Amino acid sequence: LQILKERIRKDGRVLDGNILKVDTFLNHQLDISLLNEIGKAFYEAFKEREITKIITAETSGIAIAAISAQYFDVPVIFARKFDSVNMDANSYEGSVYSYTKKRDYKMRVPKHLMSSNDRYLLLDDFLANGEAIKGMKALIDDAGATLVGTGVVIEKSYQSGHAMLKEMGIEVVALAKIASMQGNTIVFKD
Amino acid sequence: LQILKERIRKDGRVLDGNILKVDTFLNHQLDISLLNEIGKAFYEAFKEREITKIITAETSGIAIAAISAQYFDVPVIFARKFDSVNMDANSYEGSVYSYTKKRDYKMRVPKHLMSSNDRYLLLDDFLANGEAIKGMKALIDDAGATLVGTGVVIEKSYQSGHAMLKEMGIEVVALAKIASMQGNTIVFKD
Repeated sequence: LQILKERIRKDGRVLDGNILKVDTFLNHQLDISLLNEIGKAFYEAFKEREITKIITAETSGIAIAAISAQYFDVPVIFARKFDSVNMDANSYEGSVYSYTKKRDYKMRVPKHLMSSNDRYLLLDDFLANGEAIKGMKALIDDAGATLVGTGVVIEKSYQSGHAMLKEMGIEVVALAKIASMQGNTIVFKD
Repeated sequence: LQILKERIRKDGRVLDGNILKVDTFLNHQLDISLLNEIGKAFYEAFKEREITKIITAETSGIAIAAISAQYFDVPVIFARKFDSVNMDANSYEGSVYSYTKKRDYKMRVPKHLMSSNDRYLLLDDFLANGEAIKGMKALIDDAGATLVGTGVVIEKSYQSGHAMLKEMGIEVVALAKIASMQGNTIVFKD
């Protein structure tokens, strides 16, 4: 998505430790016009796939999912993060390993909000090591539902996530693929 | 907002301890068509007030703010919650007392996302005791910016929040005002 890559070049900030900050437009301050372009692009990619619900993880995915859902005309649900390892009998859940925090956490959705008949599109802001998406796939499996595909706004293509998810049979559509970041220079894959 | 009240009557669940669950359409699963009606209603209420940015608090306010911002054509920012009492020099912040957790937490926004020239509309899902909105007002004051007004989807009018905020000079527009909840019966104020 050209407008997205231009915006990342203009306003993205590369910080030490392989961090790309896009908090002025994507995941803390939200440029709603840009989110609409993102939503349209996800719709173009998945419109033939009979999506019945969009799912995301709190917090950064919520606005992306809500704006995108307008094009699909489906509801959104989001999974909440819990540090606890206790199983909640009333929730479907999936485990995520956090490299930052060096521990597992759970993504949970109350059971009454998910149905095994649903065909989910998973949306998120970033794909890097793929652990968050892998955990969301486990949650959808726990509900006996179908993960049709995943849309991410920015993929760090030099990390292992995309390949791991592909191996798991999870289709990923990324709107901006970053091949490398050096100093303030962001190189896109395509 | 009639469509909202009807939805609360139909799908809201009253639980023990004065809790109204609206998680099937407002703050966990999101009915995007309803959120658009909510956004239009907030726009009608505040369209003459030169709003330059919409602000909300994670997590439940984010989708409401994102959808509503389309009508105002302004960006959204959200404040993050931190348990810590430590001041972060790079953030504006406000304290919120949580009756549930019986302790203060901080709402924070990085300084580079706020400007003293901004005129904020604060949006949230619920108004009950008003503590969250009071904390967000403190955050906006910390940034030297203007809180033009507050829009909440559901107000528990039998609690003290509305009166407290009015006394502080904060204008509140509520789209559904609940006068009382008894068993499964929800009585609206108007």
